[in-house]
Amino acid sequence: MNKKIMNDFREKVLKLHQQNTGKLDILPNVKLDTRDDLSLAYTPGVAIACEEIAKDKTKAYLYTMKGKTVAIVTDGSAVLGLGKIGPEAALPVMEGKSALLYKFSKIQAMPICLDTYDEEEIIKTVKYLAPNFSAIMLEDIQAPKCVYIEDTLQRDLDIPVFHDDQHGTAIVVSAALLNALKVINKPLDKVKIVVSGSGAAGSAIIKLLNVLGAKEIYNYNILGVVSKSKYHQYDCVVKDLIDRNLVKTDESINTLAELMIGKDAFIGVSAKNILNKAMVESMAKDNIVFALANPEPEISYALAKEAKARIIGTGRSDFPNQINNVLVFPGLMKGALKARAKSITDEMKVVACKALQSLVPEELLSEANILPGIFDERVVETIAEAIYKEAKKG
Amino acid sequence: MNKKIMNDFREKVLKLHQQNTGKLDILPNVKLDTRDDLSLAYTPGVAIACEEIAKDKTKAYLYTMKGKTVAIVTDGSAVLGLGKIGPEAALPVMEGKSALLYKFSKIQAMPICLDTYDEEEIIKTVKYLAPNFSAIMLEDIQAPKCVYIEDTLQRDLDIPVFHDDQHGTAIVVSAALLNALKVINKPLDKVKIVVSGSGAAGSAIIKLLNVLGAKEIYNYNILGVVSKSKYHQYDCVVKDLIDRNLVKTDESINTLAELMIGKDAFIGVSAKNILNKAMVESMAKDNIVFALANPEPEISYALAKEAKARIIGTGRSDFPNQINNVLVFPGLMKGALKARAKSITDEMKVVACKALQSLVPEELLSEANILPGIFDERVVETIAEAIYKEAKKG
Repeated sequence: MNKKIMNDFREKVLKLHQQNTGKLDILPNVKLDTRDDLSLAYTPGVAIACEEIAKDKTKAYLYTMKGKTVAIVTDGSAVLGLGKIGPEAALPVMEGKSALLYKFSKIQAMPICLDTYDEEEIIKTVKYLAPNFSAIMLEDIQAPKCVYIEDTLQRDLDIPVFHDDQHGTAIVVSAALLNALKVINKPLDKVKIVVSGSGAAGSAIIKLLNVLGAKEIYNYNILGVVSKSKYHQYDCVVKDLIDRNLVKTDESINTLAELMIGKDAFIGVSAKNILNKAMVESMAKDNIVFALANPEPEISYALAKEAKARIIGTGRSDFPNQINNVLVFPGLMKGALKARAKSITDEMKVVACKALQSLVPEELLSEANILPGIFDERVVETIAEAIYKEAKKG
Repeated sequence: MNKKIMNDFREKVLKLHQQNTGKLDILPNVKLDTRDDLSLAYTPGVAIACEEIAKDKTKAYLYTMKGKTVAIVTDGSAVLGLGKIGPEAALPVMEGKSALLYKFSKIQAMPICLDTYDEEEIIKTVKYLAPNFSAIMLEDIQAPKCVYIEDTLQRDLDIPVFHDDQHGTAIVVSAALLNALKVINKPLDKVKIVVSGSGAAGSAIIKLLNVLGAKEIYNYNILGVVSKSKYHQYDCVVKDLIDRNLVKTDESINTLAELMIGKDAFIGVSAKNILNKAMVESMAKDNIVFALANPEPEISYALAKEAKARIIGTGRSDFPNQINNVLVFPGLMKGALKARAKSITDEMKVVACKALQSLVPEELLSEANILPGIFDERVVETIAEAIYKEAKKG
């Protein structure tokens, strides 16, 4: 973009954020014009609703905003491509996420940006806040602590806890990969996959692809090709991938260039420009390149195209195959809330993935069409229905 | 009320709380219909707002909901007349309070009901939540811990922290008392006052009346007439009142009946039916009785009237002189937010009291008219303006 366009865009963004002081409003939905109105919504009437809930806590789902409200919790430690910018600066993203959630699912969400980076404090705080909410969405929290925070909260709370950066990404990437594999007619359990990145997104993608039946996933991260010999250098998340045999390791391979040779699919959720044209050219015939690093991808769409990648996926809306979490979390939350699910299970992730996949029927699948668009109105309902059914099974 | 009326009321209350799942909605105020809309409100545009705030945290007041949003925090330990009913059951009250705040001041508020009764944990949690809010309203938290929680938070946070049960009550009661004293033509520094109750409301009333110039306040509580000989039995709040000489003690007086003899004013924020007709009759001529215990007062309006109390104040809207916090907190919050005050000071409480007083001009003051009504539209603006000016002085 040229400078004039950049400046105009910048001004538009700041004006939008300023005109209503942020992007959300918390408003009463009851009339308060007369003393009678007040006596129903506040004292003395409100005591009747309080007593009903005091007798049976689950009545809070009926009589309070808990029944329709999700918390979007962050510590601002890993925000978009901006990194550790802290709770205040993270707030516009959380408000945006809440707005998106409402736009697509009509579920309401409160941003909660916490002024602590300590994982135990974050866990405790979310537990204290849980009575107010139907579910917790964790957002933009650094790996590896995000994995521990989510696991602990989901173990201890009886409402769903969902870290979109992990599972939203894993679900949408898996759906994209499964449909891409249909196009090139290769089965998941026969293909060799490279996942670049082993943070929140990378580790969750590896886990879900294993659940779905992938047999040969290699992992690359900031320390190079993931290998047993570097075990002691890894954080708990990568150690867990190795311990549970979720990644293949080959001690003879040292570089990403070596690793890419003959592979069928590359999934990048890592760092800009780490993939070059030669690496893509060295892949197996009929290959798949998802370059999703944000804001700059592992390889540009143009370069991947030049290198003859057969199916290319990006995070952007101006190229084919946009692979975006917004395809997942609204429907998933809607289904989970409708079912009053107590947790988000692996089975729910699988059915969400398959539901999303199903929205591009085989006859319409092509190199440039592996996922529905984000404004496709069937997406939310289809995923919500699948999640609801799965939750009700449990 | 007869049973049919009670049942109808009950049904109406529950229907109101259920029809929209609680009394508040959290809604986006931005358009999200096109990819362009999304690029302004979410990625990539949102990063521009985030970076502005990362550079200067105070920009969060401009670009995020922080600038217009207050937290209403409780642990559900002392809710209305219901007691320790817990966070879920407290939620309808906090939603109602938020709705009232918006109705009267257009300030938005998020209920936060915490699943812990531990004062240190409450303090820590509110500190972690502070980045999201312009101010903290504490609500329905048990005494004495509410005093410690408020003091600590106000010391450590750079946003206003306001416990309405303490200071909202103290301000409205003081304004009512000052105007009542004008009617009976007695100066504050000459009258003898009994405050019944030394919890959140009682202790705050005593403190503010001292600031305003009262010289002779006696205190009565569950342990009887407050006296130095019982010092070791009191909680830190009552000890503090004695230590700072904010209450008079007279070791020869043992019962409330003895204490009431010859007193000019009784302010009850304690327990039902502790005041009888004879006690009121024993007071000084031209006396004042505010019986504000909730839901049942220290003495009924009818009985106080029979006992010839000259000015009677109650918490109810169906008698003259309703003394209700809703006259205070909307204007106070509005003024404090407009000024971006960093705390609520004693001076602000004084100006709020005087502003409220001024709304009933001397020529209109009478036994049955000491305060403006809660729907009087001048109230919020007058208090907000006074608070704003005082805050800007500081």
